Amino acid sequence: MRICVAQARVRAAALDENFSFMRKAVIEAQQAQADIIVFPEMSLPGYFLGDAWERPSFLRRCEDLTQQIAALSTQTAILFGSVGIDWNARNEDGRVRKFNAAFLAQNGSIVENPGIGLPFWPKTLLPNYREFDDSRHFFDLRKLALERGESLESLTSLAPLKLTDGRQITLGIGLCEDAWDDDYSSKPYALMLKKTSHPDLLVNLSCSPFTLGKHQKRLSLFSRLAKTTGCPVVYVNAVGSQNVGKTIFTFDGQSGIYKDDVFIPVGNPFVAATQVIDISAPAVSKALTTEQSRFEEIHAALEFGLGFVREEWNLEKVVIGVSGGIDSALSATLHARVFGSENVYCVNMPSKFNSPLTISAAKALANNLNCKYASLGIEDSLALTHNQLAEARNQGLPIPSNTPSLVFENIQARDRGARIIAGVASSLSAVFPCNANKSEVTVGYSTLYGDHAGYLSPLADLWKSDVYGLAQHYNQNVFGTEIIPKSSLTVVPSAELSAAQDVTQGKGDPLVYPYHDALFRLWIESWNRHDCESLLQAWDNNTLSALLGPEAALLMSQMFQSRDAFELDLRKWWKAYTGMGAFKRVQAPPILALTRRAFGFDHREAVGLARM
Amino acid sequence: MRICVAQARVRAAALDENFSFMRKAVIEAQQAQADIIVFPEMSLPGYFLGDAWERPSFLRRCEDLTQQIAALSTQTAILFGSVGIDWNARNEDGRVRKFNAAFLAQNGSIVENPGIGLPFWPKTLLPNYREFDDSRHFFDLRKLALERGESLESLTSLAPLKLTDGRQITLGIGLCEDAWDDDYSSKPYALMLKKTSHPDLLVNLSCSPFTLGKHQKRLSLFSRLAKTTGCPVVYVNAVGSQNVGKTIFTFDGQSGIYKDDVFIPVGNPFVAATQVIDISAPAVSKALTTEQSRFEEIHAALEFGLGFVREEWNLEKVVIGVSGGIDSALSATLHARVFGSENVYCVNMPSKFNSPLTISAAKALANNLNCKYASLGIEDSLALTHNQLAEARNQGLPIPSNTPSLVFENIQARDRGARIIAGVASSLSAVFPCNANKSEVTVGYSTLYGDHAGYLSPLADLWKSDVYGLAQHYNQNVFGTEIIPKSSLTVVPSAELSAAQDVTQGKGDPLVYPYHDALFRLWIESWNRHDCESLLQAWDNNTLSALLGPEAALLMSQMFQSRDAFELDLRKWWKAYTGMGAFKRVQAPPILALTRRAFGFDHREAVGLARM
Repeated sequence: MRICVAQARVRAAALDENFSFMRKAVIEAQQAQADIIVFPEMSLPGYFLGDAWERPSFLRRCEDLTQQIAALSTQTAILFGSVGIDWNARNEDGRVRKFNAAFLAQNGSIVENPGIGLPFWPKTLLPNYREFDDSRHFFDLRKLALERGESLESLTSLAPLKLTDGRQITLGIGLCEDAWDDDYSSKPYALMLKKTSHPDLLVNLSCSPFTLGKHQKRLSLFSRLAKTTGCPVVYVNAVGSQNVGKTIFTFDGQSGIYKDDVFIPVGNPFVAATQVIDISAPAVSKALTTEQSRFEEIHAALEFGLGFVREEWNLEKVVIGVSGGIDSALSATLHARVFGSENVYCVNMPSKFNSPLTISAAKALANNLNCKYASLGIEDSLALTHNQLAEARNQGLPIPSNTPSLVFENIQARDRGARIIAGVASSLSAVFPCNANKSEVTVGYSTLYGDHAGYLSPLADLWKSDVYGLAQHYNQNVFGTEIIPKSSLTVVPSAELSAAQDVTQGKGDPLVYPYHDALFRLWIESWNRHDCESLLQAWDNNTLSALLGPEAALLMSQMFQSRDAFELDLRKWWKAYTGMGAFKRVQAPPILALTRRAFGFDHREAVGLARM
Repeated sequence: MRICVAQARVRAAALDENFSFMRKAVIEAQQAQADIIVFPEMSLPGYFLGDAWERPSFLRRCEDLTQQIAALSTQTAILFGSVGIDWNARNEDGRVRKFNAAFLAQNGSIVENPGIGLPFWPKTLLPNYREFDDSRHFFDLRKLALERGESLESLTSLAPLKLTDGRQITLGIGLCEDAWDDDYSSKPYALMLKKTSHPDLLVNLSCSPFTLGKHQKRLSLFSRLAKTTGCPVVYVNAVGSQNVGKTIFTFDGQSGIYKDDVFIPVGNPFVAATQVIDISAPAVSKALTTEQSRFEEIHAALEFGLGFVREEWNLEKVVIGVSGGIDSALSATLHARVFGSENVYCVNMPSKFNSPLTISAAKALANNLNCKYASLGIEDSLALTHNQLAEARNQGLPIPSNTPSLVFENIQARDRGARIIAGVASSLSAVFPCNANKSEVTVGYSTLYGDHAGYLSPLADLWKSDVYGLAQHYNQNVFGTEIIPKSSLTVVPSAELSAAQDVTQGKGDPLVYPYHDALFRLWIESWNRHDCESLLQAWDNNTLSALLGPEAALLMSQMFQSRDAFELDLRKWWKAYTGMGAFKRVQAPPILALTRRAFGFDHREAVGLARM
């Protein structure tokens, strides 16, 4: 039996383009005499479409193209993902009933699912966590069972497939979450295996976003499925990038066939590929995967995601405010690699608070990256703004004559972001990124309409420690030379917006990075999320060090001499996280997601829950 | 039987404060010898908490306070909403199992629900549309039925209540959506009524946000429930405001008892109130409600919402950039009413493109509102930025020497928003609003970090036509005099950022408001949402005029002489809506929700789906 695994590049809502990819792949599969070609979940319409699922005219176009795909199945059967529509029934929001479904086409037409009397196999388990909103848009097999008063088992059915040699086999078809059934009382694949005609092959159509470490989980989950059932498992995942507004996800593919304890991968991560695999042939023994280092994974996902955004949004040029610090240095590096050095312009915007150390680091970076560089100061504009504040005072506004430092710091940041960088970028038909890291975004350590501004925050799902780690990875393993200047890696992290942040005196950010990174991870990324109460309890129980890990625990012991000192710092940053941080995140640029908990749609939050 | 309806003010995550309100209300109910006091859904923890539900320590505090509430129930029974937790079971995300639940406390302890063997009555129908995310956080009775292999009916049970006179009655308890069952195959209240001990009283605990026109729907739905079942229905809804990040919702209460064809309201909309009602007494016949006009409803919701935000976020002062146009005039008016004139500062920021007409309107507005006023020009700063762009060119950046008009328009807008207004506000410890209306937000007709910036967009759920209507409503019905200057109401809407937008020559916005408002509503607010294809079809079928309504249809017939002209305009704005508009909404300030479809969490969207 010859299976064509089509690791398709799926673009959200790009029906014609997705259809073209599919048609081309089907022709290839026919030429290779494949019995069946398998595409990812939602390979026709795309997956993260938000509430665009509510547009009947879009749904009708999906149906039209589904029929066109069916017409292509005269030789090779086609299994693909799209929206299954039952125009005679309603979703629970009152709109037309839609399913996240797999369609099987053979002999020029769509095969009816005998279990439910509809022309598709619906997803049974709908994820509603992290960035997923499946229940918002789709009905499912469990609800159908309840509505019809039948058991889920009776609605479960295998799909018949006639091979080119005339043999008839049966497929157990699931979609993504259907295989991730640990936390569900219903087990879709187990129900398929209870059917009298035992499935010959299990298939899983996925549209499963990349997350650090997720591929390892997939390997273990689908190997287990193949092993426990004795059936080969065809796993087909999309590649590309789709966004849910604030959060941009990449799709890494990692498709292949799990058989006889072996994983036969198709193509490379993040790259569209189709490959015909004869599963009758014995699988060649092969290590399950070559494990990538954490920074190799991050590097691949970031550059792929950034490249996709560039293409998707038709971007050509980028202006980057380079301060000499590590965040803007890494951001410039990433952009130079993805957009090309000739399309990246580095601008340094000194005030009297910027040290020669960081200014020369900024210039060296641009030089090393081979990017054009300009220096545009902000002192004249600050003086002008200062005068206009006095003018407002003279006109009767109760503006204090001594501008508090924080007010002046924010004026500087906005002058850089919203006046110079935005003006230069706009003049060049370019965009400019926000270089904030996850630690800063957590507590809102940035100025709205200043360094908070940008078309994208490529680093906002990386803790400050990871920013350093990734910068070192680039120098050591990607460039093999010091492209990111050593001084950017060694200078104390600082906004350089006041004399109190003078790096030449070792002064800088109020965050103690390895410690606060670890603390913030406990609030945001840990499975059972921590808050002030649980962490104070951990302090009291002496379990806090274990939670933080050795490096952060050591720092903690140096930073806090007492429980009170620990609590003061804890509550201060917690208030920033849930208050001003949350408020600023509402207006933050889109974020490239890497971890299990990226800000935005993957970390839904109300503003102002400081009292929790 | 004496029922205390507690239309509680519920603050998100403010456990102690919510508990205090409840304790005080219970004491009042006891003094009034009520048999039972009923609080809203999630009256203890609040409802819109985002993923804060994932914090075990928060959940434990909810449980502790639930026990403390139980201890208060020695005389009057207490029915309230909180999170029901089953620590021994898991939600489908793998975390501890949580229910959106009603708790009944009597004789000092929590009453067990015999139907499921847990100490609460869970919500059966979980809404997953609009701003709701119930399935993300909560398990429900339907899933429990499936897991246990039992019918929903067998898990449905009534709650026993002993009255102070010794009689025993039964309650049918539902939570919010349980009564809105039209689109669900399961009907919770119908199942309660099938029980052998027919319920004596139906109760619905709600945390149901305000939407224009929703109260009328509630009246008809709950009257019907009371009428068809013959049971009185106690409807208790929260008041206050809770946000889901980008979108801020108000809760209007509108609690009361539906009995014998009569609605007995409790208190006033948006105002916390408790009231004891003896349902044994015959209900006095009363009209179901006095209908408010559309602008009365909007006015009440906007001022309440703005007031809540002010209190919740501890705001005192506001700076408003007043252009002389209608949006900033209405925004200043709203803020002056809610914050007090003495706390509102109006700043006009003219360039050479601003006409004396609008400048004098801005000044007159501040004068009429009794707000301090300042005029701070932007020409000097524009010249400085212009020079710095030349400097960048001299340093080798390929900046064109003729700045295109759009670039220069955006530089002006950002200079006003991010430099002057933000600087003045910051100096005054004030905030500044974004005055964009829904028509502008739809297509991104605003400058990021310029007029797009602000702490809140109070008008972003009002179409431009509604902005005019509400301004007139204020002048005519609220002030009874021309506070908002006539010239702001009559001048052509214009950004005044170039000579092409000269209002003295009648030039202004590219949007033709009554027409485009109606068009955009079809994309966003109509039940089955329209797109270019469906509207072109409507043009071909001659059904478009009916969809648009008479005023917009008349304009359309004047604007477009051909299908091609209509299509050109349609596709241009559709591209703006799904492309740049969506991109800018990601970074937009929070929006006060009024309609059935406010931008943000109520209108989830991916960026860049222009091709749909």
